[in-house]
Amino acid sequence: MKKILIIAALLGFSASAYAVEIPEGMGVLPTNVPIPANNPMTKEKIELGKKLYFEPALSKSGQFSCNSCHNLGTWGVDNQQFSIGHKWQRGGRNAPTVLNAAFWSKQFWDGRAPLLEDQAKGPPLNPVEMAMDSEENSIKRLKNAGYEAEFTAVFGKNSVNYNNMAKAIAAFERTLITPNAPFDKFVRGEGDISQAAKRGMKKVADIGCTSCHSGVLFTSNAFSEFQYGKDSGVKSVTGKASDDHVFRVQSWRNVAMTAPYFHDGSAKTLADAVNSMAEIQLGTKLSKADVKDIVAFLETLTGEIPEVTFPVLPRPAGHALNWKE
Amino acid sequence: MKKILIIAALLGFSASAYAVEIPEGMGVLPTNVPIPANNPMTKEKIELGKKLYFEPALSKSGQFSCNSCHNLGTWGVDNQQFSIGHKWQRGGRNAPTVLNAAFWSKQFWDGRAPLLEDQAKGPPLNPVEMAMDSEENSIKRLKNAGYEAEFTAVFGKNSVNYNNMAKAIAAFERTLITPNAPFDKFVRGEGDISQAAKRGMKKVADIGCTSCHSGVLFTSNAFSEFQYGKDSGVKSVTGKASDDHVFRVQSWRNVAMTAPYFHDGSAKTLADAVNSMAEIQLGTKLSKADVKDIVAFLETLTGEIPEVTFPVLPRPAGHALNWKE
Repeated sequence: MKKILIIAALLGFSASAYAVEIPEGMGVLPTNVPIPANNPMTKEKIELGKKLYFEPALSKSGQFSCNSCHNLGTWGVDNQQFSIGHKWQRGGRNAPTVLNAAFWSKQFWDGRAPLLEDQAKGPPLNPVEMAMDSEENSIKRLKNAGYEAEFTAVFGKNSVNYNNMAKAIAAFERTLITPNAPFDKFVRGEGDISQAAKRGMKKVADIGCTSCHSGVLFTSNAFSEFQYGKDSGVKSVTGKASDDHVFRVQSWRNVAMTAPYFHDGSAKTLADAVNSMAEIQLGTKLSKADVKDIVAFLETLTGEIPEVTFPVLPRPAGHALNWKE
Repeated sequence: MKKILIIAALLGFSASAYAVEIPEGMGVLPTNVPIPANNPMTKEKIELGKKLYFEPALSKSGQFSCNSCHNLGTWGVDNQQFSIGHKWQRGGRNAPTVLNAAFWSKQFWDGRAPLLEDQAKGPPLNPVEMAMDSEENSIKRLKNAGYEAEFTAVFGKNSVNYNNMAKAIAAFERTLITPNAPFDKFVRGEGDISQAAKRGMKKVADIGCTSCHSGVLFTSNAFSEFQYGKDSGVKSVTGKASDDHVFRVQSWRNVAMTAPYFHDGSAKTLADAVNSMAEIQLGTKLSKADVKDIVAFLETLTGEIPEVTFPVLPRPAGHALNWKE
């Protein structure tokens, strides 16, 4: 069996040891994430970033951290339609997963952040999310909480600043890759997937889902018009009419675990999402059997969350926090 | 040096290798927690309990878990005066740390829960905390989230129920013991503490703090009248006039990390707390130097939080949560 796979690989075919042709472009999730030249990964930086990711002092209330909405225990999301933020406000878009976000060409539904470093700067200052009033006060919080020594060890002296905070968080997030999905193992000839999943795999290619949800990430990493809802998407950033209703094409990696779906969280189940997308984007009315097969395939894209040791956050002895709201 | 300590120990003296007499009763934090006969610790039960401890599905909103207020990243507390709960309500008492809670004779400020098993049943159903409307619906949440197999492995068939949920959480909490505080190392002759801390250690014994904050846990594990504030304490449970203003004597273990202090979280710093307690409970006005020494001693009681791997919570593939509020 393995031999067939190896030969197929040598010949450049996309084929599995389990004797089904894998549609063009599909393949194993990469393990090497793109790393910006100005933010190399180090063990210490990743560790600092992890602490910041779980740091409630970065919210005005002292209650919310990155992990509150992008919970690593529940596949990098909170399963809410719109996340709960400061004083129980709700955001206007569904929180996307942090898992594998290191692979996306741009961050946020409207792509307004080119890099994870840019994205990480948003939520602490967003008034309906963590609601800090300024970068300065966020940094003051970190200094009071005792982060100075850790920043110094990673970035050098006097380095507790908002840019470095974001760099450390981004470095940690680049470790949040989910390998070894059943589909990946199948492609590598290490395990089989169900017949339903195989039919689904073929179906998504045949009807054109994979023209947007393409490649090993199951996203083109581009932005597409999404004829649904009132949110103007990228237009809300660029002001261009041609960007109206344009959104990031979300990856299918771990999609079975990140309900609800769409930028407005309006699709509660994967079947709902599949039905709607086929109809809205492709003008295709799927049979119940097709939807079942496609869902079975999407479920094979659930990988493994890397093991994360829960961080003990730096706090000086005798430290008293003084949350105001 | 070690020899002196060993001889001292054999002779039954409380003495340190660092040649200062340790006040009677003080000593190393035990590692063996009391375990109820009907809830033996197993690796699988502890692991299940850890998941439940971090499980937001146990709150009506899907936002709060035990760890939201008793955050293991910040010494088992949230550093709030009163924790933020469902719909941004605030509780009426300061959230005590979960660390070492396995040693307390009773749980809650008013002691209304004899065991951790009883305590764990409270917050999910408390309308200002996690706000679930019933045990039944909490269990429904756990079943929907895919906990059935894990409960079966730990407790046997058809065992997803509120009692077992609490048992598993309690088993996990019994692992949250913080050994190796500088004071413990000092007592074991493995490290020194500052001269200020040594003066503070003597002072707390001399002026009578340790008649309540007694023994190796630095709590009598009993309840005392606390002449402060409007909260009636144990009386709110028993209705007895003699229980008015009676509260749990909190342990000093990790106290430097769990600001703010008292049942009403009104003391923001350890110095505030020391000053107030000396004055209110002992009728003693401490000098600034004494307060500094006592705080230095209390800071030696900060132990090590056990390493906790952040749990990936059970969720069936394709699971959609449907939070209502």
